Amino acid sequence: METTAIQKVSFVGAGNVAFNLAPAFYNAGIQVRHIVSRNQTEAQKLAKLVNAVAADNLSEIDKSSDAVFFTLPDDAIAGSAKELFKNNDFKGVMVHTSGSTTLDDLVKINSKAGVFYPLQTFNKNNIIDFDEIPVCIEGVNEHITHALECLARLISGDVRRISSAQRAVIHLGAVFASNFTNHLYARAFDILKRSAVNPSILLPLIRETASRLNRGEPVKVQTGPAVRGDVRIMNKHLGMLADDEAGAEIYRLLSEHIQLFKERKA
Amino acid sequence: METTAIQKVSFVGAGNVAFNLAPAFYNAGIQVRHIVSRNQTEAQKLAKLVNAVAADNLSEIDKSSDAVFFTLPDDAIAGSAKELFKNNDFKGVMVHTSGSTTLDDLVKINSKAGVFYPLQTFNKNNIIDFDEIPVCIEGVNEHITHALECLARLISGDVRRISSAQRAVIHLGAVFASNFTNHLYARAFDILKRSAVNPSILLPLIRETASRLNRGEPVKVQTGPAVRGDVRIMNKHLGMLADDEAGAEIYRLLSEHIQLFKERKA
Repeated sequence: METTAIQKVSFVGAGNVAFNLAPAFYNAGIQVRHIVSRNQTEAQKLAKLVNAVAADNLSEIDKSSDAVFFTLPDDAIAGSAKELFKNNDFKGVMVHTSGSTTLDDLVKINSKAGVFYPLQTFNKNNIIDFDEIPVCIEGVNEHITHALECLARLISGDVRRISSAQRAVIHLGAVFASNFTNHLYARAFDILKRSAVNPSILLPLIRETASRLNRGEPVKVQTGPAVRGDVRIMNKHLGMLADDEAGAEIYRLLSEHIQLFKERKA
Repeated sequence: METTAIQKVSFVGAGNVAFNLAPAFYNAGIQVRHIVSRNQTEAQKLAKLVNAVAADNLSEIDKSSDAVFFTLPDDAIAGSAKELFKNNDFKGVMVHTSGSTTLDDLVKINSKAGVFYPLQTFNKNNIIDFDEIPVCIEGVNEHITHALECLARLISGDVRRISSAQRAVIHLGAVFASNFTNHLYARAFDILKRSAVNPSILLPLIRETASRLNRGEPVKVQTGPAVRGDVRIMNKHLGMLADDEAGAEIYRLLSEHIQLFKERKA
């Protein structure tokens, strides 16, 4: 088995993931060579952060990069990988960072393929510490898997080998745990604002609800009117949502499912 | 205006709220006199923690308590307050800790009434620090409001005067922000477990989604397939939920409302 480590990387895409991942690599001593993006403003901004070169064309990518990270929307990955493969001087590993794109989608294009999926919600305006972010690794062979694993360990204390099928499940779970909860936060903020209450009052509750999961399963710490079967309070709340049809719909559905979930688990 | 401070308190109820609030008072130098509960095991356990006396009958409450805290289910508060009032040697303030019971519900029984609503999810097996918990105060007159405010400030850095109507709105918001999000966590954990993935992988994502609200409005940091309008991924996810009817229903409704909410805000 080869043991070549990944020491030089380039990025295709200069979005939220690249703005968090490239600096993490850079700070860990990895050379970041090129940042390729149609958006040159963003590419240059990121390149400056990590001492790399901004480019707007895949043909400019340094052929000696050990790996190219496609940090792109799901439906742009394959096209971009094809374009880089046509330029077949590139001998490195093609890696995507998507939760819902399979490894096979890349393997179809280039046999040296891998996945490096950091399970986190990223924002380019707030670069966060990678240390506790789980990184899901998958490679087309043991050599690539191992090389990506070693690279991930430079920046994260939680690196896991995860198949494409499992990664899809994790991504679906993440939609519930992050995208949907964030929408509930938005609804809660909206409800308070409409009554001129500052929504910041909810923040300690939101933080505790999230962080108590370290101590126990969510199904076992469920509280509130629905799990108690408190019909009087639920009806009062639905009355308060009389002018908020979407809020009332969410209230009814989630209350019903909290009760069903409890019975299923009982 | 009288300025008598609240220095001695008793509790009716030995549940999750009492187990967190009584120790907070005790540690702040407040005397806790009696813990009254039908559940003598719990009353004794809590009494021991705060150097109080456990009792199973309201008539045993020390008449010199400046305030009695009814930390009871909503529908038990009025009955219990009536019973204590009949024993009219008690001259102190009656206080409830409920989000959805109005002050008037207590005033009907005793003119010396107040509300002390700590906005948090409590568990008796994990006593948490009150310091950052917002406490919503309401009193039947300025004297009582002020006395409860001073008491709250001994344990929390975030004390707010909140009317019964606003408190009901905050409680409704809290159901979305805590009870409903916890149910989504339970769904996400369930989805991962059914595919033999350890749900602990979601914890850093859940924590970041909650704590980034300190930096911005939830509606502005919404991510995921729904807000992007990524129909391909949404259909893939619904396919994965083919054997989880409730999960699919929640997925459809919240995705639809994330899209509508975005348009409304646009």
